[in-house]
Amino acid sequence: MAKNVGILAMEIYFPPTFVQQEELEAHDGASKGKYTIGLGQDCLAFCTEVEDVISMSLTVVTSLLEKYKIDPRQIGRLEVGSETVIDKSKSIKTFLMQIFEKCGNTDIEGVDSTNACYGGTAALFNCVNWVESRSWDGRYGIVVCTDSAVYAEGPARPTGGAAAIAMLIGPDAPIAFESKLRGTHMSHVYDFYKPNLASEYPVVDGKLSQTCYLMALDTCYKYFCHKYEKLEGKQFSLSDADYFVFHSPYNKLVQKSFARLLFNDFLRNASSVDDTAKEKLGAFSTLTGDESYQSRDLEKASQQVSKPLYDTKVQPTTLIPKQVGNMYTASLYAAFASLLHNKNSELAGKRVILFSYGSGLTATLFSLRLHEGQHPFSLSNIATVMDVAGKLKSRHEFPPGKFVETMKLMEHRYGAKDFVTSKDCSLLSPGTYYLTEVDPMYRRFYARKDGNCSACENGSVVNGH
Amino acid sequence: MAKNVGILAMEIYFPPTFVQQEELEAHDGASKGKYTIGLGQDCLAFCTEVEDVISMSLTVVTSLLEKYKIDPRQIGRLEVGSETVIDKSKSIKTFLMQIFEKCGNTDIEGVDSTNACYGGTAALFNCVNWVESRSWDGRYGIVVCTDSAVYAEGPARPTGGAAAIAMLIGPDAPIAFESKLRGTHMSHVYDFYKPNLASEYPVVDGKLSQTCYLMALDTCYKYFCHKYEKLEGKQFSLSDADYFVFHSPYNKLVQKSFARLLFNDFLRNASSVDDTAKEKLGAFSTLTGDESYQSRDLEKASQQVSKPLYDTKVQPTTLIPKQVGNMYTASLYAAFASLLHNKNSELAGKRVILFSYGSGLTATLFSLRLHEGQHPFSLSNIATVMDVAGKLKSRHEFPPGKFVETMKLMEHRYGAKDFVTSKDCSLLSPGTYYLTEVDPMYRRFYARKDGNCSACENGSVVNGH
Repeated sequence: MAKNVGILAMEIYFPPTFVQQEELEAHDGASKGKYTIGLGQDCLAFCTEVEDVISMSLTVVTSLLEKYKIDPRQIGRLEVGSETVIDKSKSIKTFLMQIFEKCGNTDIEGVDSTNACYGGTAALFNCVNWVESRSWDGRYGIVVCTDSAVYAEGPARPTGGAAAIAMLIGPDAPIAFESKLRGTHMSHVYDFYKPNLASEYPVVDGKLSQTCYLMALDTCYKYFCHKYEKLEGKQFSLSDADYFVFHSPYNKLVQKSFARLLFNDFLRNASSVDDTAKEKLGAFSTLTGDESYQSRDLEKASQQVSKPLYDTKVQPTTLIPKQVGNMYTASLYAAFASLLHNKNSELAGKRVILFSYGSGLTATLFSLRLHEGQHPFSLSNIATVMDVAGKLKSRHEFPPGKFVETMKLMEHRYGAKDFVTSKDCSLLSPGTYYLTEVDPMYRRFYARKDGNCSACENGSVVNGH
Repeated sequence: MAKNVGILAMEIYFPPTFVQQEELEAHDGASKGKYTIGLGQDCLAFCTEVEDVISMSLTVVTSLLEKYKIDPRQIGRLEVGSETVIDKSKSIKTFLMQIFEKCGNTDIEGVDSTNACYGGTAALFNCVNWVESRSWDGRYGIVVCTDSAVYAEGPARPTGGAAAIAMLIGPDAPIAFESKLRGTHMSHVYDFYKPNLASEYPVVDGKLSQTCYLMALDTCYKYFCHKYEKLEGKQFSLSDADYFVFHSPYNKLVQKSFARLLFNDFLRNASSVDDTAKEKLGAFSTLTGDESYQSRDLEKASQQVSKPLYDTKVQPTTLIPKQVGNMYTASLYAAFASLLHNKNSELAGKRVILFSYGSGLTATLFSLRLHEGQHPFSLSNIATVMDVAGKLKSRHEFPPGKFVETMKLMEHRYGAKDFVTSKDCSLLSPGTYYLTEVDPMYRRFYARKDGNCSACENGSVVNGH
């Protein structure tokens, strides 16, 4: 069986267009700090009319193949996680086949996986399993997470965002799965869902969703610790991992989540936390589970005592989610990309725990073990290729009014047919795909921006058949 | 690594309500034989207002667990293939978690897989790979295929159908995968898709879809034969497998498909077909690929010469698809269930080749090797449990007018909220789940019919949270 199966390479793409949360706050008439401190967010990236989840995934997969010099014929599996539905039957994966068909490779397994923000994790697990299975044919897999998170006007709107991530999967990976260390919790809940099929916007119960997230985290952590103890013969605590990466709808929830794990450690084995924590958390040890989710005092105390550990084990993972916003399926992996960006080679030998959550609900806590790896599949090269700092720096800030205007246009465009876009790709980096047209039969047409923007109109056009 | 991984057990459910194709033909004013001979279909099953893809999947999973006496805690993975979207974010899988949560089992991986009729095959491959991977925890997996195929009034409407299938996955299976024998072809095409999000109906180009299906079949067969020859050191031909099972939008396409495989054998190695076939097909050997898909003469000649082989290698797989109609993701496995029903224990030692096709497009040709197996996971017990004959016999025929009326009601119900159904489960078998209500927040409520229908209203109610 293939060994050290995991992530060999990564690429991330987010739209260059964004709004400052501080400005959005003022524009919305929200109290100062509501989005920046209350949610813990800095900026929000969004697709304009020339971008969507298909264009973003075309961009990120093409970039992955080009930057790591992977021959498209070396790909044997390609799968997508997304909750941004443009077509209810035709998968995003089939749009991506355009990249491979032109090289004569159509023998590529995998389709789309769906459950809210968890679809990318499901796809990732499936791809790793494929490499470890008898069906593996020795080629690489690619997992794509692509989403555009948009909300109706109101309190949820500042929790939007957009991005696509592509991960190359294979054996002997610098980012390898510890497959036996995994805790999963799935349940039937209506915390966030998309039953209004004609609208891109979800139905959200923010308060319920936060409680579901924390309850799922508790349960996954319990299973995870149980498996660890069975395997390793000793109790697991936060000190047994170097970094914790969370699905990040907004940063404040990540702070609460890490505090919650510390509270779990305290309840399970008080000696695993320091004296200050023991003292401050003691008062809450008799709360029932339900009470503990509602207690603002516990929230405050646990965040306070976990702050030093948060700063070392979590803070390095928060850059992109804070700068881009919620990216649904891509959020967790954008947080992980932030860690690679911040720490790159220092991560060799480290254990990183990831928590994936999708409303509805599906959640898994799982473990990765990192090694430096061999060029081009090395931690340092992955960080170089992703160029997170460069991408953040070359963005274009939109005033809130223009953001709201764009959202309005996008509402009309969602599910629509028979229109041509502005084809304005002046804000896009070279190599970025963009939407040019949706014809009267709903068929979507994309083009790729060449080296300079004047060449947009002559960019290589990707046709529907 | 786990050995002989595959299907341990199966259950099938289709709505008890159906219309005769012969009557629909007359009702629609179509020429006599258009649906029965032209499409090769006998009946069409459909959901009334009390059934949908969620209720059908609740029914089939519960029945699978009960009839094979599987403790729900023994399930470690559950995944769904479907293209009938009721919610764009919340997976059908999470609805099924209700069955497991009440037994305290929430540690179950897997979500929904989507690409048209191929989603079930993707889920099946994923589940088999899981059992063969390091992530496997020794428990069983379940794969569910559930779809309701409905079309706008017009020529495609008689190609509807509805069903759900559940398959139990694990090692030492009577229906084991030959994982190395597999040919996949995926491509970006708009042959059938669902871009009109507010409508349940697809956009279909029937002629293009048929050509895409046959082209995909050719390509998959080419890859499959290539892999077989590399592994076995000899050419593959139809004589190397005992049965061929096809995704079946309508039976006529299955006839054409098998004929096409024989034509492939003839082109690749004329000595693998008999003298009559050689003689009749000779005239077509110089056609280009495109020409060959358009040639009615070739279609006729190849169907004629393949008829004897079709009768032995394909006809036993056609019962349910002809009686129920297209079941999208469930179609291929309903055809396979027909084979188990017709041949059960005789299948021990046989090789069965399956062709899965999903528009958009994604397709795989793959191989299963059958063994009698040990009770309750034996071929004969699977046939007994599925009770295909009993289920077909206990159906209720609707006149075409009532079918059209039901389709109209369902159009209004699709994507709707705030309504209560008739709760009339008089036509449903005991143990069947049915939809009772969709509340103002779009939350769906189901109940299960008890032993007799008078107890419907007191059936165990499955609530949204």
